[in-house]
Amino acid sequence: MSEALRFRVETLERFVTDLLMGLELSETDAALVAQALVRANLEGVETHGLGRLPNYAARLRKGLVNPKPQMRLVHQDGATALLDADNGMGQVAAATAMREAIRLAETLGAGWVGVRHSNHFGAASFYCNMAVEAGMIGFAFSNSPPGMVPYGGRQAYLGTNPIGIGIPGGATNPIGIDMATSAVARGHIIVAARNGQSIPLGWALDQNGVPTENPDEALRGALLPMAGAKGYALALAVETLCSALTGAGLSPEIPSYFDNWEQPSNTGHMVGAINIASFLPREVFGERVDQLIAGLKQTPNAAGHEAVMIPGERRIREVEQRTAQGVPLTASIVQQLNTIAAELGVAPLASDAPY
Amino acid sequence: MSEALRFRVETLERFVTDLLMGLELSETDAALVAQALVRANLEGVETHGLGRLPNYAARLRKGLVNPKPQMRLVHQDGATALLDADNGMGQVAAATAMREAIRLAETLGAGWVGVRHSNHFGAASFYCNMAVEAGMIGFAFSNSPPGMVPYGGRQAYLGTNPIGIGIPGGATNPIGIDMATSAVARGHIIVAARNGQSIPLGWALDQNGVPTENPDEALRGALLPMAGAKGYALALAVETLCSALTGAGLSPEIPSYFDNWEQPSNTGHMVGAINIASFLPREVFGERVDQLIAGLKQTPNAAGHEAVMIPGERRIREVEQRTAQGVPLTASIVQQLNTIAAELGVAPLASDAPY
Repeated sequence: MSEALRFRVETLERFVTDLLMGLELSETDAALVAQALVRANLEGVETHGLGRLPNYAARLRKGLVNPKPQMRLVHQDGATALLDADNGMGQVAAATAMREAIRLAETLGAGWVGVRHSNHFGAASFYCNMAVEAGMIGFAFSNSPPGMVPYGGRQAYLGTNPIGIGIPGGATNPIGIDMATSAVARGHIIVAARNGQSIPLGWALDQNGVPTENPDEALRGALLPMAGAKGYALALAVETLCSALTGAGLSPEIPSYFDNWEQPSNTGHMVGAINIASFLPREVFGERVDQLIAGLKQTPNAAGHEAVMIPGERRIREVEQRTAQGVPLTASIVQQLNTIAAELGVAPLASDAPY
Repeated sequence: MSEALRFRVETLERFVTDLLMGLELSETDAALVAQALVRANLEGVETHGLGRLPNYAARLRKGLVNPKPQMRLVHQDGATALLDADNGMGQVAAATAMREAIRLAETLGAGWVGVRHSNHFGAASFYCNMAVEAGMIGFAFSNSPPGMVPYGGRQAYLGTNPIGIGIPGGATNPIGIDMATSAVARGHIIVAARNGQSIPLGWALDQNGVPTENPDEALRGALLPMAGAKGYALALAVETLCSALTGAGLSPEIPSYFDNWEQPSNTGHMVGAINIASFLPREVFGERVDQLIAGLKQTPNAAGHEAVMIPGERRIREVEQRTAQGVPLTASIVQQLNTIAAELGVAPLASDAPY
């Protein structure tokens, strides 16, 4: 993104908050969604950042997402709870659920909170980080509209059902896992299509079930699961936790966020927190994670690799770099967002010189 | 296995129980290990069945595994617990832990039990099935001696750290997920080596970090993670849950079950149970899983596939077939087991004609 404009985190968060308040969200909810989206851009995860906002705005304006949801725990039993998100923003729903999971894990060692009647929640790592900051191991899963074939099939049926796991380190940075169960996240194909690039074979099938290198064909077709039968199995586990166990829609029942402008979503999530202190002292755990990471870093690298990386390491590097140099956004995204801002009477996103 | 001998489940369970009692296990513990091992053969998972018994017997006889452990919960906090397995058999440890997890989930909706000072636990699905039979979603993870490179590395550091997840169905069979986080389970390479077959590229590296098709070279080298960085990340999550969180050895610290005849293992496990009834009625969940499975079965199949399979479906078919036709064992395994039996004064495994 050499031609990108660069912005301070605070500038972006303020702008997105204002924009979402212009779309009737409360200031608290708007600020939370802003933080989640800007964090993705800060981590270099362009697929889950501000590029999603025009779609969110369109769905809010069509009345397909509820800007002022009455989220409530419809069921609570021991270390588990079930949240009805009242068709609110997925970020607000998942963060509310993770706060509850952390609260449960503080007293009971573990907390698992399911969510129904929700929407796209962005990057799973955002909620896992909440648990990590509380000294816990965090888990976040979501289902999503059908976009991936089951192993052995040629028609999209499951979502790309992501898996997020956050693990606190000791002196080292946390381990941050955030992966689609498809060979790649759909967002990468969207980015390739936007940039007019081809995609590798093995990522997706076209509408006829034939492997394709064309991202537009892939978006009309279906993604392939990671590692074949194994990724399919994991996607199915995520699916069951997020839908059958919560009352949310099954992935095949969830309308496309991009193509369906009639129906609200009923996306489901499951978040979990396991309190390290319930097993052993936090320092003992941290020292062992540090040892594990030190050993990984000493592993000789394979041809074509500079070093063994820790999951989340690249994102942490991007955060450091982008905090110093500004968060890049393409002129196209800035323009799209400013068009919406103008329609809502919100002050435009102004360039953060000297970045 | 056309030249295999075939046996009744009861015959095998009785024989293995007697053999393990001859190795000083209590009848209860011996019967449990027998059930777990025979179940793997019944499911067609030869890699985790009676073929493991000569190694287990050798380690018990060398005093490297404790036949009469005093397993105890060293810590219990809310929905979590930590079991010290006192260097007993992994099957006994993991089943004890899962019983505790189920007990916790009955009252608190969820239960997570870590295990340290344990040994090889066999197939993860065995413990997940315990949760499924109790109307719960079951999870079972283990670390293991180093056998897999981290993504980007060329030296074995992590174990093949398996993931087991069991999900009850409604009218349908349960979904049974049991996968190594390596491209393939080490057991498949052991079987290929035993049968003198080559292995596909992408499964393993040789001792010099070069991809190999030779199973013997692969066993001296290292396995590759499934789906590259993604499988590595999942293996690392399993590792952390099983070792840093339990006090067990890190995978790189665990001595080989096959090559190290000096040190006891300190393998770690983590098992979990989530009680479906804590979220919504069991029947509602079952109906939704049935719908999900019905939809998967209606998905048109890709070229080269007869149908979309449900995880665990093949194993359930094998159980039906082998229950009817007998469980096949190679003459070589029968001979090895009967040699051990003779040394212990245990009655030999006799052919189950008319199978």
